[in-house]
Amino acid sequence: MDLTEYLEQTADNIDRLIHRYFGSSCEDLGRASAHLLTAGGKRLRPALLMLAADAVRKGSSADVMPAALALELTHSFTLIHDDIMDGDATRRGVPTVHTRWDEPTAILAGDVLFASAFEFLSLADCPDNTKVRSVTMLARTCVEICEGQHLDMSFEGCEEVTEGDYLKMVEKKTGALYAASAGIGAILAGGNDAQVQALYQFGRSIGMAFQVQDDVIDLVASPELSGKDRASDLREGKKTLINIRAADKGIDLSGFRRELSDEEIDSLISQLESLGVIGEVRQIAFDLVKFGKQRISILPESDEKRLLCEIGDHFVTRGF
Amino acid sequence: MDLTEYLEQTADNIDRLIHRYFGSSCEDLGRASAHLLTAGGKRLRPALLMLAADAVRKGSSADVMPAALALELTHSFTLIHDDIMDGDATRRGVPTVHTRWDEPTAILAGDVLFASAFEFLSLADCPDNTKVRSVTMLARTCVEICEGQHLDMSFEGCEEVTEGDYLKMVEKKTGALYAASAGIGAILAGGNDAQVQALYQFGRSIGMAFQVQDDVIDLVASPELSGKDRASDLREGKKTLINIRAADKGIDLSGFRRELSDEEIDSLISQLESLGVIGEVRQIAFDLVKFGKQRISILPESDEKRLLCEIGDHFVTRGF
Repeated sequence: MDLTEYLEQTADNIDRLIHRYFGSSCEDLGRASAHLLTAGGKRLRPALLMLAADAVRKGSSADVMPAALALELTHSFTLIHDDIMDGDATRRGVPTVHTRWDEPTAILAGDVLFASAFEFLSLADCPDNTKVRSVTMLARTCVEICEGQHLDMSFEGCEEVTEGDYLKMVEKKTGALYAASAGIGAILAGGNDAQVQALYQFGRSIGMAFQVQDDVIDLVASPELSGKDRASDLREGKKTLINIRAADKGIDLSGFRRELSDEEIDSLISQLESLGVIGEVRQIAFDLVKFGKQRISILPESDEKRLLCEIGDHFVTRGF
Repeated sequence: MDLTEYLEQTADNIDRLIHRYFGSSCEDLGRASAHLLTAGGKRLRPALLMLAADAVRKGSSADVMPAALALELTHSFTLIHDDIMDGDATRRGVPTVHTRWDEPTAILAGDVLFASAFEFLSLADCPDNTKVRSVTMLARTCVEICEGQHLDMSFEGCEEVTEGDYLKMVEKKTGALYAASAGIGAILAGGNDAQVQALYQFGRSIGMAFQVQDDVIDLVASPELSGKDRASDLREGKKTLINIRAADKGIDLSGFRRELSDEEIDSLISQLESLGVIGEVRQIAFDLVKFGKQRISILPESDEKRLLCEIGDHFVTRGF
């Protein structure tokens, strides 16, 4: 099976579970909790969890399905709360929960998904000791994600953000949940410590790569493909690896915080490309994926291991 | 040991754990998460959890300590998020987290405690199957608490709140976490289904009684004793059992929403007392405790069972 086919099939399975458990609430809070969850999404974390499980023990992915859903619920919970904090009005083409309802309801909707994640994790068809270990890992991961979001927000008022600061933030905010996805898949499938660690670190590296590539995409992707405004990070004055590397070469990208014309953006991209900034940042993302793939070289060869490597490659070659 | 002594000793133990794990963060988010937790509290849920464990299996309370802490963390998480939603500026004599920091930090601080609760629960020194069952119970309980808070907020714009609506809200918002405290104590100690159910229902009933008594205290307690403003529910136009029973007798208490003089409050109390409203509401709280105590009559006699019954009595006889 090729990766696209696999991802589509997993997304269908997760969507079915989501509609079964969250699709038909007649309570207001239930609808608010389901709102973002049922608005689509690539379901990459569930796919990673299931592939990791099958890579450790062929055929175990069916047993870990509730845990795969749990990771998607966790992701959705973080998005709902982040949208409140960042004041974002739309996501996935629909109004955010605090916009469609109100802030109190959005706080509660996130909390409901957070709690549900632990409920579904505890319902996986796996030995109890693996479920307890998974609960510990997911709980620690959620603390890390909060720390990452807090760090990200703190960058706004911060003059000097180093490359180390930025990578630490990305590791916590994005890498940690991908790490937990692969790690929990390995744990629930009965993997030994070396396998769990390898898959955990693999997830962390490719998750960080995903975010670094996102920064590149924000700048260079055409709005038609990405469905997002071009160069929103520049316009919002967000600190990314591109800003940091550009500053190293004497270009200050932090001062815009306003609308930019297409010509201005094109000119900036040319300048950054000729200075090698975009190439360097792409290389960091590639290196992270390469490192991640090295970590799982200890796993026996299998279709699932191949698909995991392909997910890593996909994270840094995708154009949107 | 008498109840006061027992509660003081448990609170000391929980306080020690809190200071060990949350007392010395040098990160801003860590301090925000610890802020309310280290500002005191009666630690009633941990006490209930530990007594339930010992009532099922003498000596098991030492093993369940991390779970007892987990319940206090859960309680603290709900308070931090509720304070944002309700716009409250102080609690336990200190500024609320969103007042001392800001709303985004308070959302994250609550999320950190929520995640930490599941981490500590998974660290109890108990068989894995009991921990998995406890995770499921705590997760479901958190969903119920969110539903209760949402219901409570929905009452504000609601003309007609029935006694049934009110009791359902109290059951979810306050009863559920007391239920889980006693239920999880019983599960972790290895209780059978009948014991777990009995303690769970006991916790639910006395938790509801606690909240009903709170409504009475809000009205009649002297500010010197309670440390709160008198009749804040009346001034804020909150729906309580007192308002609902008063309305049955033709007295509309919903229209104040303003400062009330001591004379006005005294006159209202006299009126409500002569009509029997306060007595009736007190009786509901007493009946809930009586029902709860009946549920645990199936447990063998022990000091802990006696203390559990005394906690129930304390909930409805306390004056503040």
